[in-house]
Amino acid sequence: MKTLVAHAAKDLRLEERDAPAPGPGQVLIRMEAGGICGSDLHYYNHGGFGAVRLKEPMILGHEIAGRIEQLGDGVIDLVIGQRVAVSPSRPCLSCEYCLEGKHNHCLNMRFYGSAMPFPHIQGGFRELLVADAIKCAPADGLTAGEAAMAEPLSVVLHAAKQAGDLLGKRVLVTGCGPIGLLAVIVARAAGAAEIVATDITPFTIGVAQKVGADTAHDVAKDPDALSRYTGGKGHFDVLFECTGVGPVVASAIPALRPGATLVQLGLGGDMTLPVQAMTAKEILFRGSFRFHAEFFTAVSMMQSGRLDVRPLITHTQPLGDFKQAFELASDRSQAIKVHLDFGSVSA
Amino acid sequence: MKTLVAHAAKDLRLEERDAPAPGPGQVLIRMEAGGICGSDLHYYNHGGFGAVRLKEPMILGHEIAGRIEQLGDGVIDLVIGQRVAVSPSRPCLSCEYCLEGKHNHCLNMRFYGSAMPFPHIQGGFRELLVADAIKCAPADGLTAGEAAMAEPLSVVLHAAKQAGDLLGKRVLVTGCGPIGLLAVIVARAAGAAEIVATDITPFTIGVAQKVGADTAHDVAKDPDALSRYTGGKGHFDVLFECTGVGPVVASAIPALRPGATLVQLGLGGDMTLPVQAMTAKEILFRGSFRFHAEFFTAVSMMQSGRLDVRPLITHTQPLGDFKQAFELASDRSQAIKVHLDFGSVSA
Amino acid sequence: MKTLVAHAAKDLRLEERDAPAPGPGQVLIRMEAGGICGSDLHYYNHGGFGAVRLKEPMILGHEIAGRIEQLGDGVIDLVIGQRVAVSPSRPCLSCEYCLEGKHNHCLNMRFYGSAMPFPHIQGGFRELLVADAIKCAPADGLTAGEAAMAEPLSVVLHAAKQAGDLLGKRVLVTGCGPIGLLAVIVARAAGAAEIVATDITPFTIGVAQKVGADTAHDVAKDPDALSRYTGGKGHFDVLFECTGVGPVVASAIPALRPGATLVQLGLGGDMTLPVQAMTAKEILFRGSFRFHAEFFTAVSMMQSGRLDVRPLITHTQPLGDFKQAFELASDRSQAIKVHLDFGSVSA
Amino acid sequence: MKTLVAHAAKDLRLEERDAPAPGPGQVLIRMEAGGICGSDLHYYNHGGFGAVRLKEPMILGHEIAGRIEQLGDGVIDLVIGQRVAVSPSRPCLSCEYCLEGKHNHCLNMRFYGSAMPFPHIQGGFRELLVADAIKCAPADGLTAGEAAMAEPLSVVLHAAKQAGDLLGKRVLVTGCGPIGLLAVIVARAAGAAEIVATDITPFTIGVAQKVGADTAHDVAKDPDALSRYTGGKGHFDVLFECTGVGPVVASAIPALRPGATLVQLGLGGDMTLPVQAMTAKEILFRGSFRFHAEFFTAVSMMQSGRLDVRPLITHTQPLGDFKQAFELASDRSQAIKVHLDFGSVSA
Repeated sequence: MKTLVAHAAKDLRLEERDAPAPGPGQVLIRMEAGGICGSDLHYYNHGGFGAVRLKEPMILGHEIAGRIEQLGDGVIDLVIGQRVAVSPSRPCLSCEYCLEGKHNHCLNMRFYGSAMPFPHIQGGFRELLVADAIKCAPADGLTAGEAAMAEPLSVVLHAAKQAGDLLGKRVLVTGCGPIGLLAVIVARAAGAAEIVATDITPFTIGVAQKVGADTAHDVAKDPDALSRYTGGKGHFDVLFECTGVGPVVASAIPALRPGATLVQLGLGGDMTLPVQAMTAKEILFRGSFRFHAEFFTAVSMMQSGRLDVRPLITHTQPLGDFKQAFELASDRSQAIKVHLDFGSVSA
Repeated sequence: MKTLVAHAAKDLRLEERDAPAPGPGQVLIRMEAGGICGSDLHYYNHGGFGAVRLKEPMILGHEIAGRIEQLGDGVIDLVIGQRVAVSPSRPCLSCEYCLEGKHNHCLNMRFYGSAMPFPHIQGGFRELLVADAIKCAPADGLTAGEAAMAEPLSVVLHAAKQAGDLLGKRVLVTGCGPIGLLAVIVARAAGAAEIVATDITPFTIGVAQKVGADTAHDVAKDPDALSRYTGGKGHFDVLFECTGVGPVVASAIPALRPGATLVQLGLGGDMTLPVQAMTAKEILFRGSFRFHAEFFTAVSMMQSGRLDVRPLITHTQPLGDFKQAFELASDRSQAIKVHLDFGSVSA
Repeated sequence: MKTLVAHAAKDLRLEERDAPAPGPGQVLIRMEAGGICGSDLHYYNHGGFGAVRLKEPMILGHEIAGRIEQLGDGVIDLVIGQRVAVSPSRPCLSCEYCLEGKHNHCLNMRFYGSAMPFPHIQGGFRELLVADAIKCAPADGLTAGEAAMAEPLSVVLHAAKQAGDLLGKRVLVTGCGPIGLLAVIVARAAGAAEIVATDITPFTIGVAQKVGADTAHDVAKDPDALSRYTGGKGHFDVLFECTGVGPVVASAIPALRPGATLVQLGLGGDMTLPVQAMTAKEILFRGSFRFHAEFFTAVSMMQSGRLDVRPLITHTQPLGDFKQAFELASDRSQAIKVHLDFGSVSA
Repeated sequence: MKTLVAHAAKDLRLEERDAPAPGPGQVLIRMEAGGICGSDLHYYNHGGFGAVRLKEPMILGHEIAGRIEQLGDGVIDLVIGQRVAVSPSRPCLSCEYCLEGKHNHCLNMRFYGSAMPFPHIQGGFRELLVADAIKCAPADGLTAGEAAMAEPLSVVLHAAKQAGDLLGKRVLVTGCGPIGLLAVIVARAAGAAEIVATDITPFTIGVAQKVGADTAHDVAKDPDALSRYTGGKGHFDVLFECTGVGPVVASAIPALRPGATLVQLGLGGDMTLPVQAMTAKEILFRGSFRFHAEFFTAVSMMQSGRLDVRPLITHTQPLGDFKQAFELASDRSQAIKVHLDFGSVSA
């Protein structure tokens, strides 16, 4: 089977590996769609991010969907030919944090396509994947692309849980990449009264408005846009921060109401923050990291039509065109989410 | 001006009173629409409910909207002719609970059309009303009927806040009167993954489905409907209880997941509850009573189209036909919310 | 080895069984102390409670401590001779609720000495017990009796978590059996500003005062005691309800502040509750059931001296005197917690 | 009467002003004790902090207590000669945030001795003060010094509320000035299982251990002390951050458990924080600012002996020795809280 392996920055290769076989409780999946995530791009463009670096070849990919090709012993809930979204999150279920139900903080996490720990955890950009049956969410009725969106959507559903009740709230979203735009979609579905989004790219600004932002500001052109929301007393109840850029956070603080919740999704290393102002306003700043039970919720809410992520899948490329796909995904002026199509190896 | 005064059970009279004049910070409102609430019906049908009894004549009504007719000194945010929804909640702002921000528990509350305390607090079913300007939510763009729905909608928004985040949750609504149906509408807007409603009247069951319930059960015909959701382990995350009937609550407990939240909205005196089962499941049972800041949110979310309550206004009657209106409002087989039209005194 | 087996109401027998051997990851424990719990008393006095009934002989007991006698393969954290408190809670770790971290709601729970499910789960009143090493909390520095108190103390620590922050709060405890008295001790340790307890037995009232209640009322003699706390507006922030008796709960409601939290610990079947008043006050009524991670916390907080439960162990009886012990434990006029001493079989 | 007026950095003067008279609902208080707070020191040493600068002469002081000298009309709850702690927090009760119960975020706050806004709000370091009766907490049984500690203690009780339930938690306190040491005292009273404190001064380290820290590290001598708590997986559940120093926060992050709460009390302008690590750990970082209802709780918990702040009052100086007092209060190597004694003007 073909696999997409990162060796180093800008060194991504399509390599042949032996096909795996499912054990008891497992299934063999013929992969259909794989979404290129920001971390995949970090490996591709820079060989990693922060302290997380490629130290050996690693198959990328963790936003994945396919069809069941073979059932291992004892699997009764899935059927051959069925489309599934595969959760890349594989906590150990026995460490201190798993036992507390905080699976996303598992001390022994094996998350697909992650260079942490070593040996790296191989990912899902491949033609065939063996997965535990309980990690497969039946995705009947969804396209392969939608099913592959279950993972980033889960990340945002988890973040929304950190933010609490959004009904009637005024929501700010900074950063309109895939995660920020999903935050717009989710906040809309959760009953936000007002949604304002910011980015620095006209293309993503336009998509934000299309998927539900009441207003979207291009802060490259209008750097003071958020200052108009303050009136000296704050406006927004919730901020989904999806840039990981310190000055963006700093510029948003005056626009938040006292006691507002700032959910940090963007991962950007150290940041210099206006902590005195955040303290005086009693801002509740909470990180949101990955997800757990939200994965199955994400799939079922797409199935029922409550959440429509399709406008975010701007490109679907044959696996053979992977380089073009990764370049495209790195270019926020024309692409939001780029999917690899594992079923059509060459263009 | 004409006023609608309850003297005793089944003794409701249209009476002439002197027109009031607005003081500083107040406005005079020419009333347009008034919704008949369950408590109005209790006064009309039974002279009160529980320990709350009519002891003197009282103008009914607290779901009210009208147009500004005159501005008192110092009022600058409202204009003559503007439609407003009037909040009937008038906390003292200085008692222990007001100072904690729990205005709905004000020890000196003066809520329109309430026989508690004595002398009773006169209500808003009248042609002219003087109100504090800060109690008037501008309702531009809404019909008078929608504006009058701000009050019951606020009650449900407050209840939703008690329930917390509804995004992706499975919600049960017991009782499909106006409050239960608003709970369906609000749960839908808040991103519930699944909404199941129950009632004992085919008409209300039908409306529940129309306004967003995925399934609505007529438990008069199918008393075991909820038992099919249990599977021995619970199904619903949240219950909005809108009947106030003990056996209804009892029958719903097995269908709730451990740790589920039961928001009690129905007011029905004492109830015999399966407390042992509720304890073993760690059910979070919390009452919800009236509202506070939700009033302005209710109006603005109707204005932005996020919440559409119009399907619930099944009848609008001229003030002169008040008896017919109250009888109609008492009949759940054909009416949900009945509005009085103060602008057309006779039919 | 000797075991204490319940056959039916008032039919409790000391029976000989084969000694068990520890498997990998397990330890063999020579039992020292076992506390007689309310559920043990229900089996002894009535053959069960509610729908939970004895259907076959069952070894009682789940408040237990002893010394490690033998280590199974792979156990490295415990040493022979070490005293341990043994958690009786054995969730499956793989059901829906375990995966959510709600281990106390495990669908396949195997809790020592419980007639639910069938076959019953055999308990810990025995000379020798095999337990998983991870269920053994090292209890160095504690007496065997204190170690055996870890279980009921965990129940109360879990309940305190349901109540949230107790610092500076006014706390009411209804019922001064072992659980109620532990609630007094825990509320005191958690910084409650005022603790009032009620019961109907002078003996327990006295113990309540001794372990930290500011005031303890004998409501058998002074049935209106709680009415003096209301002043028409409520007094207590938190109620730990440890009787399971409906009228007790009803009489406490007027003494609670709006928004107060009522943690229901007592298990008493159906109750008739003043739901209208609870709703108008927005009482947060939440059940508390068993515990999970609190077990190890309980042991370590006794070790550090933060929680002193010794005043509650009023009697320690040799195993051979089990009948006397169970009668004593049933008599609230002279006993709080009665312990069996497995190390001295006959008196 | 004598007042202590800050004119500029290092320009503090004892000035004579006219004695005030109480209006209706007010009392005249003969001041006894005033604690020198960090903000007083900022005005004294630097003329302000951050954007908050002295622009006109301002009486300092907001940690104050005295005895009632005269009652204004209508005051019935206080008696002449009674000692009271005076809350310096005077929210408007009518702005948007006051109406939500968030009085500490009042848009029109008049907090004693604060250079924000302009004209500045004159403070309480004076011989006579007129205050609203409802701002006076009867402090019978407390020393004047204890009563003057009500204010900083309220700040920490408010912070503890932000942290939630501390029972059985592992608590880290960074910074052992008066606020940090009060955090140690409060965490101990709230049932923390373990308290670790850090500072860079042997004197404060010693006091931390005296008032309840299980361990206190001098991180000037042992900069890696906190690294020993991580073990790669985190140790503390709660951090009370009382330094406002970025690198201190950064060094504490690895020692926190995933999902830990970091309550920021120290006010130190901008900080560079390890946001990526905080996000991956889902740290809940929340500012805590001033207090509200906690003031009366603080007094009553000192009265009942639940909280003992006396070890923190290291010095009490006659008003005439104000310069020495301010220099002393600036020196963490020998002083924690320095009080001015208004009753003895000269040494």
